[in-house]
Amino acid sequence: MDSTASTSSQSGEISDKHPTVTVDLGQRSYPIEITTAATEAFPASVSKALPDLTHAVLIHDEAVESYAAELQQKLSDIRPSVRVDRVDVPSGEPSKSFQQLQRLLDAMLACGADRRSVVIAVGGGVVGDLAGFAAASFARGIRFVQVPTTLLAMVDSSVGGKTGINLAGGKNMVGAFWQPHLVWIDTQVMNTLPERSFLSGLAEVVKYGVIDDAEFFCDLERDASALVQRQDAVLRQAIERSCQSKARVVNEDERETSGRRAILNYGHTFAHAIEATAGYGTLLHGEAVSIGMQMAASLAIDLGLCEADLLTRQTKLLLDCGLPVRFPDADVQAMLPVMMRDKKVEHGKLRFILPRKLGQVDLVGDVDQANVVKAIHAHR
Amino acid sequence: MDSTASTSSQSGEISDKHPTVTVDLGQRSYPIEITTAATEAFPASVSKALPDLTHAVLIHDEAVESYAAELQQKLSDIRPSVRVDRVDVPSGEPSKSFQQLQRLLDAMLACGADRRSVVIAVGGGVVGDLAGFAAASFARGIRFVQVPTTLLAMVDSSVGGKTGINLAGGKNMVGAFWQPHLVWIDTQVMNTLPERSFLSGLAEVVKYGVIDDAEFFCDLERDASALVQRQDAVLRQAIERSCQSKARVVNEDERETSGRRAILNYGHTFAHAIEATAGYGTLLHGEAVSIGMQMAASLAIDLGLCEADLLTRQTKLLLDCGLPVRFPDADVQAMLPVMMRDKKVEHGKLRFILPRKLGQVDLVGDVDQANVVKAIHAHR
Repeated sequence: MDSTASTSSQSGEISDKHPTVTVDLGQRSYPIEITTAATEAFPASVSKALPDLTHAVLIHDEAVESYAAELQQKLSDIRPSVRVDRVDVPSGEPSKSFQQLQRLLDAMLACGADRRSVVIAVGGGVVGDLAGFAAASFARGIRFVQVPTTLLAMVDSSVGGKTGINLAGGKNMVGAFWQPHLVWIDTQVMNTLPERSFLSGLAEVVKYGVIDDAEFFCDLERDASALVQRQDAVLRQAIERSCQSKARVVNEDERETSGRRAILNYGHTFAHAIEATAGYGTLLHGEAVSIGMQMAASLAIDLGLCEADLLTRQTKLLLDCGLPVRFPDADVQAMLPVMMRDKKVEHGKLRFILPRKLGQVDLVGDVDQANVVKAIHAHR
Repeated sequence: MDSTASTSSQSGEISDKHPTVTVDLGQRSYPIEITTAATEAFPASVSKALPDLTHAVLIHDEAVESYAAELQQKLSDIRPSVRVDRVDVPSGEPSKSFQQLQRLLDAMLACGADRRSVVIAVGGGVVGDLAGFAAASFARGIRFVQVPTTLLAMVDSSVGGKTGINLAGGKNMVGAFWQPHLVWIDTQVMNTLPERSFLSGLAEVVKYGVIDDAEFFCDLERDASALVQRQDAVLRQAIERSCQSKARVVNEDERETSGRRAILNYGHTFAHAIEATAGYGTLLHGEAVSIGMQMAASLAIDLGLCEADLLTRQTKLLLDCGLPVRFPDADVQAMLPVMMRDKKVEHGKLRFILPRKLGQVDLVGDVDQANVVKAIHAHR
């Protein structure tokens, strides 16, 4: 391992105005720059991360076309020798397909991409995962930049190097660990994000408070209403603290080999089962995670792992963030088989990420099915 | 870099009878075991390389089905808990496609493959490249074993971690650097290899003598007729020496970043242009490489980089190996544009791997087109 476990947060060197979180992975280290209305500063950050840039392929969600076109224009202004092509991707999960991957790779080749070219992914998790995998596999791997445009992507999928597409038989079954060279976040792009989508992203923010950073959890309790109102300064800080937590975990377990990275899945085993049985799309991912964290906290309390107070505070914070804390339609009998297919299942035994106290979770194996059923019922 | 530049050759620990070459890449190091009629020993080697094996997916060229079935049977005998599935792939370059990749990945998921499963690629370069990329991308990367069944794959594509598929617009444009955990070579499987295919593989063997190992070149001059007759001991030694050279180069430049790995392309810039303009399939890859090495040697002599004697000896050795040394149908005007699209072209200038003397080549830039034309004409 050439990675270290430290994470540094510092004022950005390019601008004093925006915070930068560094993902510290030795030669594969990269900055996450968190800005507001700072498109002007984007080319300088790209130039710093990729000094030899001559050709970029900007791959974007069709929903953010005007923002992508603006970034393209700014990048083209760096110097006359910088060429920027642009390819759009239909919005939505079905785009994480072989068909779209092949289409992107053909388009990259057609516009003259080579080993020195750079992919810039502009969009939510779908585009980040798809374009990241295209970058990982074109010419056996070229550099890429993540420009997440949803809160969920900013605090979760754009950081950590997981890229990939879906198979008919399973989500994210094909992909690569491929770290970006820069993550560029501009909170202003969220102004047009629908309310439900924005709030959904807050579930992952709350998650970092529970799994890694108790002080951050307290700050969120204080700032929840400002956050829901999308106040830029509070938002930048929440994204910064979330990215610090994510970077810390990724530093410790880049390729998901030690098990440490699994803590990011707090609430997700329940959430995936809710999403799969409710039909994907009934609930947004973050909404399912919110309910899943509630079930996981109840399970932990039932198993005597943590105090009941944790659930009380988590419930209030999630509600203050406008998130659902129960799922009346939960179908326990349908959810259990889905949970048994979870990647964390080993030798048929259910395993969960469960809290001990705010800021600390553990992977707990050999959980009795009766307790799981009880935890689901507690939040129906 | 956590790799070292040393290569060790030693008697295999499993059997005194077969040589083992180690590709030394730190945590990604692996053995190449070179055997004859040793299928019985295969499970022990796999168990040693992958002690926790419980599920393997054996992906094979349809042309070697009976050999693949035999390996499957032997592996299943390791212990009752080892499960081995088998998937075939149509012979030929068109199988390096998105369609076949998706088919393999779907099949892997359908037979219950997970992160602990192992892919075993049995076949020539096509199957090795395709199955290797399937292993690299399934669940973001699982372990794999190469069992090359052609001489070309044994001495070239199975060693070094290059995997991938083709785009309509370019060969090997999509893939990953993904090292195997074991390369298992059994010379007996070549008994059924057609004469032309076998001899074609000898071109890459001769290449290692020119680019890296002058002593090996001399040995080949002595042993050419035994080699052409496929004498096992001579064949094992030639494969061992070739793999040592390849391992040495890969050690120094695993991901093709320093430029060192480019020396493996000696003769290949000419060869690719010959293959592309003659229509893929007119000449076998090794035959084109043989002619390409002749053109490269002539170019080097013309540029005053090496003595004419090198070409004389190379010509005789290639002829002794039953390989073509000229291509009467060479279409110079068609070849030049293809060469300009070569990955080694930078800023429109042709670059070639050219010999200084036996065992030593250099990357030579800024070569005048007139010299290139002259070199092609010398071997028409």
